[in-house]
Amino acid sequence: MSSTMLPRIGSPADLKTLSEKELEQLAAEMREELIGVVGRRSAHFASNLGVVELCLALHLAYDFTTDRLIWDTGHQIYPHKLITGRADQLHTIRTKGGLMGYPNPAESPFDLFMTGHAGCAPSTALGMKAGDELVGHPERRSVAVIGDGAFPSGIVFEALNNAGGLRKKFLVVLNDNKMSICPRVGGLAYYLDKARMTPTYNDWNKRVRKLLPSIPLVGEGADRWLQQFKDAIKASIHDGGMLFEELGFAYIGPIDGHDLRTLRAYLERVKAMDGPVLLHVLTDKGHGFAPAEKDPVKFHAPAPFHQAEHGIVPLKISSSRAYTDAVSAALFEVLQRDPKVAVLTAAMCEGNKLQRIRETFPNQFFDVGICESHAVAFAAGMAKTGARPVVDIYSTFLQRSFDQIFQEVALQNLPVVFTLDRAGLVGADGPTHHGSYDLAYMRIFPNMVVMAPGDEKDVAPMLEFALRHDAPVSIRYPKANVETIDREVQPIELGQAEILEWETDGVFLACGTLVGTCLRAAERLREVYGLRVGVVNARFVKPLDKPTVLKAIEECGFVLTVEEGCLAGGFGSAVLEAASDAGLTTAHVRRLGLPDYFVLHAEREEQLAEVGLDVDGITQAALDMARAAGLPVAALENGHACAR
Amino acid sequence: MSSTMLPRIGSPADLKTLSEKELEQLAAEMREELIGVVGRRSAHFASNLGVVELCLALHLAYDFTTDRLIWDTGHQIYPHKLITGRADQLHTIRTKGGLMGYPNPAESPFDLFMTGHAGCAPSTALGMKAGDELVGHPERRSVAVIGDGAFPSGIVFEALNNAGGLRKKFLVVLNDNKMSICPRVGGLAYYLDKARMTPTYNDWNKRVRKLLPSIPLVGEGADRWLQQFKDAIKASIHDGGMLFEELGFAYIGPIDGHDLRTLRAYLERVKAMDGPVLLHVLTDKGHGFAPAEKDPVKFHAPAPFHQAEHGIVPLKISSSRAYTDAVSAALFEVLQRDPKVAVLTAAMCEGNKLQRIRETFPNQFFDVGICESHAVAFAAGMAKTGARPVVDIYSTFLQRSFDQIFQEVALQNLPVVFTLDRAGLVGADGPTHHGSYDLAYMRIFPNMVVMAPGDEKDVAPMLEFALRHDAPVSIRYPKANVETIDREVQPIELGQAEILEWETDGVFLACGTLVGTCLRAAERLREVYGLRVGVVNARFVKPLDKPTVLKAIEECGFVLTVEEGCLAGGFGSAVLEAASDAGLTTAHVRRLGLPDYFVLHAEREEQLAEVGLDVDGITQAALDMARAAGLPVAALENGHACAR
Repeated sequence: MSSTMLPRIGSPADLKTLSEKELEQLAAEMREELIGVVGRRSAHFASNLGVVELCLALHLAYDFTTDRLIWDTGHQIYPHKLITGRADQLHTIRTKGGLMGYPNPAESPFDLFMTGHAGCAPSTALGMKAGDELVGHPERRSVAVIGDGAFPSGIVFEALNNAGGLRKKFLVVLNDNKMSICPRVGGLAYYLDKARMTPTYNDWNKRVRKLLPSIPLVGEGADRWLQQFKDAIKASIHDGGMLFEELGFAYIGPIDGHDLRTLRAYLERVKAMDGPVLLHVLTDKGHGFAPAEKDPVKFHAPAPFHQAEHGIVPLKISSSRAYTDAVSAALFEVLQRDPKVAVLTAAMCEGNKLQRIRETFPNQFFDVGICESHAVAFAAGMAKTGARPVVDIYSTFLQRSFDQIFQEVALQNLPVVFTLDRAGLVGADGPTHHGSYDLAYMRIFPNMVVMAPGDEKDVAPMLEFALRHDAPVSIRYPKANVETIDREVQPIELGQAEILEWETDGVFLACGTLVGTCLRAAERLREVYGLRVGVVNARFVKPLDKPTVLKAIEECGFVLTVEEGCLAGGFGSAVLEAASDAGLTTAHVRRLGLPDYFVLHAEREEQLAEVGLDVDGITQAALDMARAAGLPVAALENGHACAR
Repeated sequence: MSSTMLPRIGSPADLKTLSEKELEQLAAEMREELIGVVGRRSAHFASNLGVVELCLALHLAYDFTTDRLIWDTGHQIYPHKLITGRADQLHTIRTKGGLMGYPNPAESPFDLFMTGHAGCAPSTALGMKAGDELVGHPERRSVAVIGDGAFPSGIVFEALNNAGGLRKKFLVVLNDNKMSICPRVGGLAYYLDKARMTPTYNDWNKRVRKLLPSIPLVGEGADRWLQQFKDAIKASIHDGGMLFEELGFAYIGPIDGHDLRTLRAYLERVKAMDGPVLLHVLTDKGHGFAPAEKDPVKFHAPAPFHQAEHGIVPLKISSSRAYTDAVSAALFEVLQRDPKVAVLTAAMCEGNKLQRIRETFPNQFFDVGICESHAVAFAAGMAKTGARPVVDIYSTFLQRSFDQIFQEVALQNLPVVFTLDRAGLVGADGPTHHGSYDLAYMRIFPNMVVMAPGDEKDVAPMLEFALRHDAPVSIRYPKANVETIDREVQPIELGQAEILEWETDGVFLACGTLVGTCLRAAERLREVYGLRVGVVNARFVKPLDKPTVLKAIEECGFVLTVEEGCLAGGFGSAVLEAASDAGLTTAHVRRLGLPDYFVLHAEREEQLAEVGLDVDGITQAALDMARAAGLPVAALENGHACAR
C-alpha cells in the first residue's frame, strides 16, 4: 500500500477536511508507516500501534494549537508525530539528530513536555489548566493521556485527588491496554479488569430489573436479598468508575479505542462536561499487527525485523551478553542459595531480564508495578525483618525513590541492596533515561555504600559483598555489553580500589565500566606517545579508597578521574574532597564525566564520544594534562589521537 | 490528679492486667501527662491527644514484641512512648540526649522506623509482612497507623494497590481526624467526609427498605427510579469503603476512636480476618483538652503554655521574625503586584506561614496536600503556560519531588521557583527534618540556579531575581530568626557573590545565613588573634561565581567554605571543582558543613556547635588553617577560642 492520505496531513487541521472513510485509510497508512519504520530499528512499537485511532480522535475533537495535550510515558507519541508535520522524518526516530522517541518541545509546538518517566501527565496537564486560567486563557482545554501501566504510580493518585478537589474542567484519558511493559500487577489491575467486564450502564439496568421482581420485602429473606443485591451492585453498578467518581471525577467508559466514530462521539460529549472527567478507553497493544497483538511484551520495543509471509523474521539477534544479563544471572545464583533474598522490581521484569527469576522463585520475587517509591520503602520493611531485598530498578527511575532511600533506608541503616541498571548514557532513549545522577545522590546519604563494577568479573562478587554487608549498598552498571579485563581479580573489600596498572606519569582513577576504555587509552598513550599512565578500578565511590587516591595524587604527574555520571558532586568530586581534606594540591587533578547539559538521543557510542568518554576523548584529556605537567610527550601525531 | 496507673505500665504486657475502668483511668492519666509535658515546651500536641485510646487498643489487641506496628508521621508517637517503658523520660522529649519526638529504634524495640516524612508506613509495614514470611515468621501480624492528612500521598496509594494485589494479612488503621497540619484538601477529603456521614451498614439497609416498596417496574418511571436509586446507593451503600474495597481491601468502619471498648472489639474482629483490611477510625485532634479541640491547627505544635482557669496562657510569645516570615512577606508583595504569580504548598500553609496569602489571594494559592511530587509537576505545568509558580516546601519534604525536579522542571527548563524552608539544621525535630541535601542535589541538574540568601536583605531581591529569571531557581533558608548585615546591599546578579570584607590572610566563602556567623568569627580572629580574614556572601551555589572563588584561592592564605548542607557534593565541593577545572591548587582550601552522619534532635544552636558551624567552630577551623599556612597567629589563648 502506498500512502496517499498521510502526505496530505501537514498539521492536525488537515484532519478535519477528511471523510470518515478517508480517516480510516489514514489510520491504516499510519500503521503501515509505523510497522515499516519500527521494523528497521529498535523502537517502541506495540503501544504506538494501539493509539492510532485515539490520537486521531483527540486531534479531531480538540484544537491543540491552543488546547493542551500531554502524552504520558511518551513512547506512544509516534502517531502524534506522524500527524503533526513530522511524517517525513519518522525514519530518523531515535537516531542522532533525528526525531526523539518521546515528545520533544524542540521539535514541535504540539509536544509540550518530554515525558520518559511515567505518571506525571495528569499533574502537568492539570497544572497547565490552572496556569492557563491564571494568565487569562480559561477557554483552553487540558487533556492527559495515560496508560494503565502508569496508573498505579503514586503521583497519578495525587493528581486525581487534587483535580477532584479543584473541580476544574480537565480530561484524563485512561488508555487501558492491560499492560505496562510487563503484565500489570496490584489491586488496581483487578479493578480495571472488573471494569472491562461491565461494559455499559444499560447492562447494569437490565441486571437490576431482572432482580427486582424477586424481592421479599421483610424478614431474613430480605436481609439475604439485600446482601446479594449489594454484592451484585458492587460488581456492576458503578460502570467501572466508582473509584474515580469517589475522587470527584465523572467517569465515562469503558469504550472501544479502535472505533474512531465512538471515540469522536465520546470526546465531543466529554468536551461539553464541566469538572474533571476520566474517559476509560480500551485498546490493544500492537493493534493491527498480528505478531505484536499476540506478544505485546516482546513487541514493546522489539529488535528490527523483516515481515515475511508466515510471520516475522528478526533481522539481527543480539547474542552478546549485557551487564543486565550478568546481574540477572548473579541474582539467580544468590536466590538459589539463600531463601531470605528477594528481588524487587517496578514493572521492569522484562527490561531487567528477571523473567526466569519471576518464574523460578515466585515467593522471592516482587513486582510492585511502576511504583518506585513504594518499592524502596517496602524493601526497607523487608530488610527490617532480616530478609535481604535487592531493589533492581533503572538508575533514572530510582530517582523516584530519592526520599525513601533517605528516610526508609539510609536513616534506618537497613541493608537494602540497590542494583541500578542503565547507569550512565543509555543511547536512543535519550535524556529522560540517562542514569546520570545516582553516584552524586547516593553518596550524600550517611551509611550508604556506593559501588560500580569495573567489568563483568566484578559483578557477582560485588553482589555477594553487598548481601553480606549490614548496611545499604548501591551497585550501578551501564546499558552496555559486558567486558572482561584479563587479570587475577582481587576480592571485594569495603572501600578498596583495585590497582590494575600503576604508573607515575599519570593515572586514571576510573569508576565503573569505563575502566576498559581507560585501559585502551593507557595503551595508546604508552604506544603512541610514550606516556606511562596507570589505571585504577575504583570500585567504591563511598567509602572512597582514600589511601589509593591520595597516593595517586602525591605520586603521579597527573590524575584523571573518569566516570559515567554527572560531574557535579560525583566520583571526581569525592576525590577532590578527599584531597582537600588531606591538604593535598589538586592542581594536577582533572575530572571527566557527564557535562552540565542534557545529552540528546543517539547511539551510546556517539554519546560517549560527544562527552569525551571514549578512547579518543580520554586519551586527549590525558595528553592535555601531561603537557600541562611538563611531561615529555612523544609527538607522533599519527592520527590515533583525534582532536576533540 | 496524680498518676497511679501510669507508673504501673512498664511495658504493654502490663496493660492486659488492667480492668476496663483502670484502662479508662490510665487514658486520663496519659492525657494529663501529655498536657503537662507539652505545656512546658513546644512539641506535637493535638495529634497525640487524639490517639490515646487507639494506642491502648492496639497494644491490647496485638503483641508488638512479635507483631509489627508502624506509626506513620510519627509525631503521634507520645502515647506509645508512655506505655512502652518511657513514661519517666517523656519530659526530656525533643531535647538533646532526651527522647526523640518521633519513633526511634535506638530508644525501644517497640519503635521500628523513624518516621518523620508522611505516608510510608503502609509500605514499610507491608514490606515487614512480606519479609517476616520470607524469614519464617508468617504468624507475625503487621499494622500501619496512618492519618488522613498523609493519606493522599502517592506512596500510600502505591502501597494499597500492592497490598490489594498481594492479598497478605495486613492491617491499615486510618486515623481520621479531618486534619493534616492544615485543613485537608482534595477529592479524597470529600470522600472521607461522605464516609463519616454514613456510619453503618444497618443504616443503609433501612434506607433501601424505605425505597423498595415505591418501585415502578416498567417504563420511564422505572428509569428515573433506577437513576435515583443508583445515586442513593453511591452515596450510602459502600459503608464509606468502596474506594478501598475496589483496591482489594476489606473496609471496616468508621468507628469511634475514643471508645476503647469499640476499638478493642473491632481490632479483635480484624485480627481474625485474612487479607488486607482497612479500619477507619474517627478521632478528634486534641481530644480531652478543650482549647486544642477548638483550634487543632494552633495546637498541632503549640508554644509552651500555662493552663489557667479560663483557658490557656502562652508562656512565651516569639516576637522575633523568622526567615519563614521574611519569605512569606516577600511572596505577599509579589502576589500583590503580579497576578501571574502563584504560590504552591504541600499542606504546609501553617508551617510556611501562608495563611494570609491563602486568604488574600485564593486564586493564586494552591495547597495540594501532602503530595510533593504532584506539587512540582503541577507547578511545571503552570510555568509552561506563562504563569510563575513558586513551590514553597520544606527542604526535607521537597526530597519527595527529586524526580519531578529532574524531568518536569530542569529537563524542560521551565521557570519554577523553589523556596526551600528549613534548609540546614532544624533543631528539635531532628534527623528526619534537617534540610541537609538540597544544595547537593539541586546543583546536579542542568538549567537549575541554586541560591541562598546571606541575610534578610537578600530575601526579597532574590525572590524578585528568581521570578525574572527564565529558568528554574531554588532559594533556601534556615529555620532561624532573620539577621541583617549592615551594608549597602549589592543587587542580585546571576552568578555573582557579594564580597563583604576582602582580606588576604584568609577568607570565608560563606553560603547562606552562616554569613553572619562568619562575620563574627572574622571579627574574633582579627581582635583576638590578629588575623585578617575576609568574608564573601556566596549567594549563588550555581552558577558559581568562579572569578571571585578563583581569586580567593589565588590570593588568600587559606580558604574556608562554610555551608549548612552536606559536605558531600555541596557548595564546598563546587568550589573544589572550580579550582580543579582551573588547575589551581586546593591544598589551602577546606570545607565546613554537615558531616556524614545523621545529627540528632537538640536545639539548633546545640546542633550547629556539634558540627562546628558556630562562631567557636568556625574560628577554630580558621586558626588551624592559618597555622598550617604558616601565618603568624597572635596566641592570646584567652578563652575566646574554645577547643572543639
